[in-house]
Amino acid sequence: MQLLNKPVNALTLELLEELRTTIVELEEDPQVRGVVLGSAVPNIFSGGLNLMTFYGADSDTLTTYWTAVQEMWMTLYITPLATVAAINGHSPAGGCLLAMSCDARVMVEGSKFGIGLNETKLGIVAPMWFADAFRAILGRKKADSMLILGELASPAQALEIGLVDAVVPLHQLQGAADEFLAAQLAIPDAARAATKRQLRLAQVEALRSTQAEDLDEFIRLILSPAVQSALGDYLASLKKKKAPKE
Amino acid sequence: MQLLNKPVNALTLELLEELRTTIVELEEDPQVRGVVLGSAVPNIFSGGLNLMTFYGADSDTLTTYWTAVQEMWMTLYITPLATVAAINGHSPAGGCLLAMSCDARVMVEGSKFGIGLNETKLGIVAPMWFADAFRAILGRKKADSMLILGELASPAQALEIGLVDAVVPLHQLQGAADEFLAAQLAIPDAARAATKRQLRLAQVEALRSTQAEDLDEFIRLILSPAVQSALGDYLASLKKKKAPKE
Amino acid sequence: MQLLNKPVNALTLELLEELRTTIVELEEDPQVRGVVLGSAVPNIFSGGLNLMTFYGADSDTLTTYWTAVQEMWMTLYITPLATVAAINGHSPAGGCLLAMSCDARVMVEGSKFGIGLNETKLGIVAPMWFADAFRAILGRKKADSMLILGELASPAQALEIGLVDAVVPLHQLQGAADEFLAAQLAIPDAARAATKRQLRLAQVEALRSTQAEDLDEFIRLILSPAVQSALGDYLASLKKKKAPKE
Repeated sequence: MQLLNKPVNALTLELLEELRTTIVELEEDPQVRGVVLGSAVPNIFSGGLNLMTFYGADSDTLTTYWTAVQEMWMTLYITPLATVAAINGHSPAGGCLLAMSCDARVMVEGSKFGIGLNETKLGIVAPMWFADAFRAILGRKKADSMLILGELASPAQALEIGLVDAVVPLHQLQGAADEFLAAQLAIPDAARAATKRQLRLAQVEALRSTQAEDLDEFIRLILSPAVQSALGDYLASLKKKKAPKE
Repeated sequence: MQLLNKPVNALTLELLEELRTTIVELEEDPQVRGVVLGSAVPNIFSGGLNLMTFYGADSDTLTTYWTAVQEMWMTLYITPLATVAAINGHSPAGGCLLAMSCDARVMVEGSKFGIGLNETKLGIVAPMWFADAFRAILGRKKADSMLILGELASPAQALEIGLVDAVVPLHQLQGAADEFLAAQLAIPDAARAATKRQLRLAQVEALRSTQAEDLDEFIRLILSPAVQSALGDYLASLKKKKAPKE
Repeated sequence: MQLLNKPVNALTLELLEELRTTIVELEEDPQVRGVVLGSAVPNIFSGGLNLMTFYGADSDTLTTYWTAVQEMWMTLYITPLATVAAINGHSPAGGCLLAMSCDARVMVEGSKFGIGLNETKLGIVAPMWFADAFRAILGRKKADSMLILGELASPAQALEIGLVDAVVPLHQLQGAADEFLAAQLAIPDAARAATKRQLRLAQVEALRSTQAEDLDEFIRLILSPAVQSALGDYLASLKKKKAPKE
C-alpha cells in the first residue's frame, strides 16, 4: 500500500478515507494477512495532516476532516492485519502518527529526515490520543519531552529511542519492511491479531468514548485566532518554496 | 521454596494451590520476612501452565484450574513477603509470570534457556493481566512487541531489557538470589510491604473486578476449535521427546 | 526562584505556601514565561518534607501541612510557566518531588549527592502520586524498584536513568538550567503550556479527586506508633550532627 498525494503526501480527507477503506477491504480479503505501508513520493512518508484544510476553515469542514482522522486511526491501530511502515523520508506530526499505528517501523537512513510529533512548533496541540500512541512506543518521559518541545528525531535518533525498529539504505527499505512483516506473519494469525487488539483496544476505546469532545476540542483549537494566525504564517512560508523542506 | 513437579514444573492445579497456600502460611509466620522461589528440577524454573489440562477439557475443569491461576497470582503479586525468583533454566509463559510476580529475578546463564510470554507461538492469547505485569517490567513497547511475536529472551537478553535483574553461573544462583532478598529486607518491613502493595494493587484489583469475565474469556479461548487443534498438535510433538526441550 | 530555609531547605508549611503563592503570582505576570527553581543553601536543593512537623504532631497540624504539600504540587506540576530545577546538591524525598515537578532537571556533579524517593528507609510510605510522578520519569520498573528500596541516585546515576537531564560542575549549573529553560521558551507559549497541561492533568486530577482520602491516609500513617517511633529515632540522630549529612 503506497501513499501517493504529491507533493508531500498530506493526509487530505480523500487520502484518509481511502486509507481507511483500503484497510477494511484488505481485512476482508482472505488472501491478505498483512501489509507494508509505504510512500510513492520520494523523500517523504507523509507530511501529516492537511494544514490547508485548517486555514480559514468552517466548522463543518473541520468536523468532516477530523472525524476522518479519528476513524482512520481507530481502524488502522487495531486492524487484525499485520502492518509495517516503510518510512522513506520525512514523517512529521500526522505522518508520525500513521507510522506509529503500524506494528513495526523501518526508516530510510539520512540525517536530513525527521520523524516525531512537532505540533507545538506550529503552535498546535497534538490531542491526547496522539500522545498516548507516542508514549506507548517511547515511554512517558521521552514522549512527553519530545511532544512539549515539538522535536523531530533523525532516523539514527529514532532508532536509538525505539521510535523506529530499523534504519536502512533506501534500496533495502522494502526488503527490511518485508522481513518485519514476515516476523509478524510467522505467528498464528488469530493469536497475533487478538493479542494486538487486546493491547491496543483501551486506547481506541478511550478515543471512541470521547470522540465528540475530541472533535469539539480540535475545532475550538483550530478556529482560535492564535492558531489561525500561526497557520497563515506557516502557509505563507511554504508558498515561498518549490519543494518540501528537507 | 522450591518448585518440584517433574518433568517440567508444569503449574498443575495442585502446584498452584500449594504455592498459594504456602505463601499465605509464610505470611502468617512471624519468623519469615521473605522467600526465594526456586526450582528443584534441573534446567527448568517452570514450563508454565499445564497445557495437558486444557486439551479436551470440560468447562468445570477449566474453571477450577483458571481460578487457581488467578488466585495464586493475586496472592503472590502483592504478598507482604519479600520475594526473589531464582530462575535456574527455562521459564516460558506461566513460568515467566511466576518469576515476574516476585520482587526481583536472578537467572542462571546459558543461551539455551528462554524466558518470556510465548503464548502466541502456541496460538494462545495471554490475558491482559499477564501483559500488564510484563509491561510493568519492560515498558509497553518492548512488552507488547515480545508478546505479539511470542518471543523468549535468553538470559543475556533478559538482563539487557530488564526482565531479570542479574545473570549468574548456576553455582552462584542461590547466593545471588539471597543478596537480592537481603536488599529488600534491609528496608523496614511495614514500609516496604505497604509501598509494594500500593504500587501493585491496581493491577490486582483490575483482575479481581473482572475475574468472572477473565475466566469466561479463558474458557472461550481454550475451548475454541483452533486452540484445541493447536494444543493437540503441540502435545503430540511433546510426546515424541524424552525430555523437555532446552 | 531560590529556596532559602536553612539548614536543609526543609519544606516547611511557610516555604510550601510561599512556593505556591510565588508560582501563582509569576503565572499572572505577563513578563514572566518561565522560571529556574534553585537553592540558596550550599550543597542542598531541598531536604524534603519537614519531618519536625510530623513528630508528636496533632491531626490539625498534619491536615494543614499535608494540604499545603498537595496544593503546592498541584499548582507547580501543571503550571503554564516553563520550569527547570537547578539541583545544587542533595534532593531526597520531597526535594526529589519538587525537582520532578519541573519540566527539566539539571544537577550539580558530585558523588556525595543523592536524589530519589527514600521514604521507605525512614519507615514511611510515599503516596501514590509521588510514585506516579516518579514513574512518569523513570518508567515503572526502575521507579518501583527504587521506591521500594528507598534508593537515592548519585548525579551520574540519575543522569543515566533519566531522573535528571544534565549533570554539570557547580559553576555551570545556572547556565545549564538557563539553556533548558530557553529550549522550552523556544516553543510558542500557548501550545507548550497546553501540551504540558494535557500530559500531566490526569495525575493532578487523580489527586484532586482523592484529596481527602490521601490526607486521611497520610495522617493515619504518620500518627501510627511505628512511624512516630521511627521519626523519633531519626530526629535524635539528626541532633547529633552539626550540618546536614552529605
